Amino acid sequence: MEVPKKKQISHSFRCDQNLSHQAKHLLLELYKCNYEKLNDESFLRCTLNKAAKLANATVLDLISNKFEPQGVTAIALLAESHISIHTWPESNYSAVDIFTCGQTMLPELASQYLIQALRAKEHSLRVIERNPPTSVLKQMRTFV
Amino acid sequence: MEVPKKKQISHSFRCDQNLSHQAKHLLLELYKCNYEKLNDESFLRCTLNKAAKLANATVLDLISNKFEPQGVTAIALLAESHISIHTWPESNYSAVDIFTCGQTMLPELASQYLIQALRAKEHSLRVIERNPPTSVLKQMRTFV
Repeated sequence: MEVPKKKQISHSFRCDQNLSHQAKHLLLELYKCNYEKLNDESFLRCTLNKAAKLANATVLDLISNKFEPQGVTAIALLAESHISIHTWPESNYSAVDIFTCGQTMLPELASQYLIQALRAKEHSLRVIERNPPTSVLKQMRTFV
Repeated sequence: MEVPKKKQISHSFRCDQNLSHQAKHLLLELYKCNYEKLNDESFLRCTLNKAAKLANATVLDLISNKFEPQGVTAIALLAESHISIHTWPESNYSAVDIFTCGQTMLPELASQYLIQALRAKEHSLRVIERNPPTSVLKQMRTFV
């Protein structure tokens, strides 16, 4: 599953209500995860892509790096910001962040999916509100 | 300036003291920035690369996307985690996050550099400690 470098489509997001809650940065710590899943670069790329779709986000690019002897970083560049996952399989730990901007975004669904997909027996989630000017949250954007 | 997809080098980071302070996630809001700089994809890629180097980080990959009619996202995948920058030139605003793990990391230097480089007249910086297991912070990693 590869993500095209550039999508020739248009996309819009508008936030006319509850503006202060539309730019969220989720910091997720995943503990006691499955070693094999944390060390599987292809699986993590697919998982990140699916998490983005569940969050109602559009993936524009996706990069990853496999470390030796173990560990993976995967990052999805979204129309609505980004999702990253960094794994330390030897510690059964993964650090995730999900930054989304838009009224239609559902970053908590991405978070829930990642907890399950990586078989995390414990986790810690912090939801932090970013503070863009109101004009950012009301805008319409097209990417090419 | 292009960053190679994979670096064939080894890298290590150890944290034997002050472990609780070695995994930091900086959330930086930049206000009243220079419009042209926020809309210049090449400039932002160079700026992100320089910020990573100032933070004593190793850039493994760097991706970016230019939006229409304006705006850029650029993300650097680091050996030590990641740095991202999302810009809304029409609002003179940029949202940055810098996630670093390692005793030798200096993420505040990257933050200071980005504030200056984008000519932000106002900014807000939150430094959030991530909570990896101690074993993560003591590890040595090699990437290929």
